[in-house]
Amino acid sequence: MSNFGFGELRLVNPYDVAFREARSAVKAHKVLADAREYATVGEAIADCALVVGTTSKGHRVLDHPLHRLEMGGRLIAKKLGSNPVALLFGSEKFGLSNDDMSYCHWLMRIPSREEHASMNLGQAVALCLYEIVRSPAASRAKPEARQPAKAEELDRLTVLLEEVLEHSGYVHARVAGSTRMKTRRLIRRMDLTAHDAEVWLGMLRQILWKLVS
Amino acid sequence: MSNFGFGELRLVNPYDVAFREARSAVKAHKVLADAREYATVGEAIADCALVVGTTSKGHRVLDHPLHRLEMGGRLIAKKLGSNPVALLFGSEKFGLSNDDMSYCHWLMRIPSREEHASMNLGQAVALCLYEIVRSPAASRAKPEARQPAKAEELDRLTVLLEEVLEHSGYVHARVAGSTRMKTRRLIRRMDLTAHDAEVWLGMLRQILWKLVS
Repeated sequence: MSNFGFGELRLVNPYDVAFREARSAVKAHKVLADAREYATVGEAIADCALVVGTTSKGHRVLDHPLHRLEMGGRLIAKKLGSNPVALLFGSEKFGLSNDDMSYCHWLMRIPSREEHASMNLGQAVALCLYEIVRSPAASRAKPEARQPAKAEELDRLTVLLEEVLEHSGYVHARVAGSTRMKTRRLIRRMDLTAHDAEVWLGMLRQILWKLVS
Repeated sequence: MSNFGFGELRLVNPYDVAFREARSAVKAHKVLADAREYATVGEAIADCALVVGTTSKGHRVLDHPLHRLEMGGRLIAKKLGSNPVALLFGSEKFGLSNDDMSYCHWLMRIPSREEHASMNLGQAVALCLYEIVRSPAASRAKPEARQPAKAEELDRLTVLLEEVLEHSGYVHARVAGSTRMKTRRLIRRMDLTAHDAEVWLGMLRQILWKLVS
């Protein structure tokens, strides 16, 4: 919850010993320290405009609409701007009861394999919250800027590599032309940054110096 | 891993006691039972065509390209069809070392809050694997089919509710017309399924019977 910026944890009938210990631990995150306990699900979600239950089952329960997480996350994100939304998780062992689910507007399931659908509670919570905050735009974004080597640097590198290959005896005079073209393309395929091009130039200069000395 | 259908767990220098115990536990999942140990990262990823490191840091390290999970997941999913891909996680405490990262083609980070970027290892793994298998199409999909009530049923319901309201004294003759319209719209806004419309009809019939008897 804290990783993704969700602050309000509400518990109904938590396992008391574990909860009290976790809450009073020195390093307890603010989320845990601020968590509130309620006697019933109804009280816990009373101020929420949307209540979404989570289930690992693939089939519909209690005639609730069932969304996959990808869709559910989008619907929740839309609502979150204007209204408090409750995301309801059951116990790891039994999930939500039919009574718990009767408070929900709809249900959401994580698209895990049918053969292994039930999931660790902490992981299930992380997945749901990630889906709510994930940015669809970010999947189309370019990686952070890296400075690519300019054509001029790549040319210098190509020429230098050719020299090294000539002096090392790699290039046979008969095929020199085609080797040059291959070398040029080889260098371009490296997709070098300006910095890496510099490094290569330095290495090749040193190799050439050694070859001709 | 098992939830999302990933089968091949490789470990480098795992915490021995915990790993042996987990692996030999009666209920150990196939993934854990089949896990293999390697002496070095280099050996563990030797047969992979793409090696992606994970980091909780927002800045670039070692001049590696850094993608957000949304983008990284897409790139990995593309590659997975044709080539083995390694997803590299460091220890929960220290993350990947610079040496580990030098084996990576690029790095990926989960878009968690800057104030709380470091994440539980099991949750981080679940998020990365989910992002790889998640279906962008599913976020546009409609919920599973539910049978909506037909206009005919809604009309019967509207008429019945009007009767009940009249017999209960809710409707003043002076405003009956506008109440009828309001009732009609109220019923439509309920967005009822065929089944729920039946339930409402039954309840209202019973109420009406009681009111007129």
